[in-house]
Amino acid sequence: MAAEIENHLISTFGGLFGYDEAGTEGTFTSGGAEANHTALLTAITAHFPDFPEHGVRSLPRQPVFYVSSQSHHSFLKAARFCGLGTGAVRHVEVDKQLRMSAGSLSDMIRRDTADGLEPFMVVASAGTTNAGVIDPLQQIADVARANGLWYHVDAAWGGAASFVSELKGYFAGMEQSDSITFDAHKWMSVPMGAGIYLTRHRGILNRTCAIETSYMPKDAAGLDIRDPYMHSMQWSRRSIGLKVFMSLAAAGKPGYESVIRHMTAMGDRLRSRLELAGFEICNETPLPVVCFRPTGVRDMQILQAIVRKIVNSGQAWISTTQLDGQGPVLRACITNFRTEAEHTDRLAELVKTYTAEVMGSEGQG
Amino acid sequence: MAAEIENHLISTFGGLFGYDEAGTEGTFTSGGAEANHTALLTAITAHFPDFPEHGVRSLPRQPVFYVSSQSHHSFLKAARFCGLGTGAVRHVEVDKQLRMSAGSLSDMIRRDTADGLEPFMVVASAGTTNAGVIDPLQQIADVARANGLWYHVDAAWGGAASFVSELKGYFAGMEQSDSITFDAHKWMSVPMGAGIYLTRHRGILNRTCAIETSYMPKDAAGLDIRDPYMHSMQWSRRSIGLKVFMSLAAAGKPGYESVIRHMTAMGDRLRSRLELAGFEICNETPLPVVCFRPTGVRDMQILQAIVRKIVNSGQAWISTTQLDGQGPVLRACITNFRTEAEHTDRLAELVKTYTAEVMGSEGQG
Repeated sequence: MAAEIENHLISTFGGLFGYDEAGTEGTFTSGGAEANHTALLTAITAHFPDFPEHGVRSLPRQPVFYVSSQSHHSFLKAARFCGLGTGAVRHVEVDKQLRMSAGSLSDMIRRDTADGLEPFMVVASAGTTNAGVIDPLQQIADVARANGLWYHVDAAWGGAASFVSELKGYFAGMEQSDSITFDAHKWMSVPMGAGIYLTRHRGILNRTCAIETSYMPKDAAGLDIRDPYMHSMQWSRRSIGLKVFMSLAAAGKPGYESVIRHMTAMGDRLRSRLELAGFEICNETPLPVVCFRPTGVRDMQILQAIVRKIVNSGQAWISTTQLDGQGPVLRACITNFRTEAEHTDRLAELVKTYTAEVMGSEGQG
Repeated sequence: MAAEIENHLISTFGGLFGYDEAGTEGTFTSGGAEANHTALLTAITAHFPDFPEHGVRSLPRQPVFYVSSQSHHSFLKAARFCGLGTGAVRHVEVDKQLRMSAGSLSDMIRRDTADGLEPFMVVASAGTTNAGVIDPLQQIADVARANGLWYHVDAAWGGAASFVSELKGYFAGMEQSDSITFDAHKWMSVPMGAGIYLTRHRGILNRTCAIETSYMPKDAAGLDIRDPYMHSMQWSRRSIGLKVFMSLAAAGKPGYESVIRHMTAMGDRLRSRLELAGFEICNETPLPVVCFRPTGVRDMQILQAIVRKIVNSGQAWISTTQLDGQGPVLRACITNFRTEAEHTDRLAELVKTYTAEVMGSEGQG
């Protein structure tokens, strides 16, 4: 029963992201990191049939894969854990909007192949953690197809925005991916952790995860039974899908659409309030994450002093981060559907007030 | 706070298993499979310093490790996932009590080394899933030390028995291990999943899991702060330790001791009732898992017919399994601390009644 609910959800989410529902396979995971790890393992298994039994030493060349410098660092961990080594992770340049450059990706693949390496996967982000940046998904899909790479889209956080019609366009090309990471515990407001790995390649999870030995029960031949441990990195595990199902049953797709519309509207409102208050917005995204700073201020210590004052006020929580080529910024991310206009406006005021205090005392200091 | 509670528990469990409390490091996991997977990754990283960055292809020889045929199959999955391949898993013979043979282990290591392979780890089970068998932990510790192998004890289920003084002797040698897997969601009755990985090698989790890049925050130098994502396979994750802490706070160590004593007593009672009812007991263990069959009956179809009748009665749940060299058996495992004498006695009666029915109809058929 629990397994059937999860199978149903996997198909449903596949459909929401543009896969053929009936052809979608997937598994619930402890979080986005495990989903990304699963993606890497399926990509290796799909590309290198000898990997499951004979491992990396049996491969003719060193496998390498591509991420942008803005991608989630769980891919570095996964590369190490799967025996490719962190050296197998190739970082593709980003453009000024922090989007992976499809041209640089093509060039790197060509050079790496000439150098005797074996490219097998590219990872695009649909909503980076740092700045909510959505990579040019269609262009990367084209490069992946032209080079025979497994194409993974890490939409852990951002993917939910594609459920809303007016934001769907940002995700064009995602439906051509081989696999997707999505975290239901982010915008869907279910408790940690509810990661989801989706793929349109039926059978690849079984080839990746199922243990071939006489001791183990086999999937019931001819029946539509999928033993979860044969299709995921974990063995017996929590019924992660149930809480997602209950939330969807309660809120419905329209409920989530309205939550996502509301949160992106709050993000837009925060952006405009900050601009009005004289701050510079440093990222381009339709998602409710705002990277900003007092215009021209690139001193991390000043930014951290502002963050300390805001966090200590007990009224809001923001942080600092570093953007490639842009330097340090302040970062505010709206993650609660109860965030209202009064909260965004108060945050903008707090930032303005404390910035004046910090910059004033810096001036005096 | 949550991280501090988990750190406290890791030390406490280390102490319970005979490690030096202050020197114990570890992490909570989604379950025993992830803890075993973590053990494999730490063992590789400890043995092959080039593994994290350059992967398996950089290693001079094919790494291999040792389990018994009775060990948990999550090691096969982990071997595949970490790029060694399932071929790297070497199955050591078991004796008639289904315990790993330390002599065979020594011989295999010698042969494999002569064949140009590189042994790096041995896994002992302290309570196998099938039959509750505890490997000769001290003997395996000696072989591991003599050959420079990482020594892992998978005590996912059985480990809790070592908390009770009169059972502790079965686990002698476990305290010499390099790492331990333990599942708090088994005898400690907390919800799935609460796996624990423990090691007495401080720093190895960091070397195995921490990503070295300029983008990531570092552990605060000089402070005793351990960022969980730097010390576990997962990234951000549920606060698994809290439920274990609350359970321990409510029941105390004496509470768990009495639960474990009670369950092992119920296991002993079930064994003797089954013997009285004319059944053959096929496993040797102090743990409450009983493998048995109508004396001399090695026909899996008969055993499965008995299981069906018992399960369909709605009064008990048992299963069949295969024991190496012993063939098929019925298997009853006591996992609920509310199991009382009346339940074990009724199960023995059910088994007797339904066996007579099945054997009778077999006789007529």
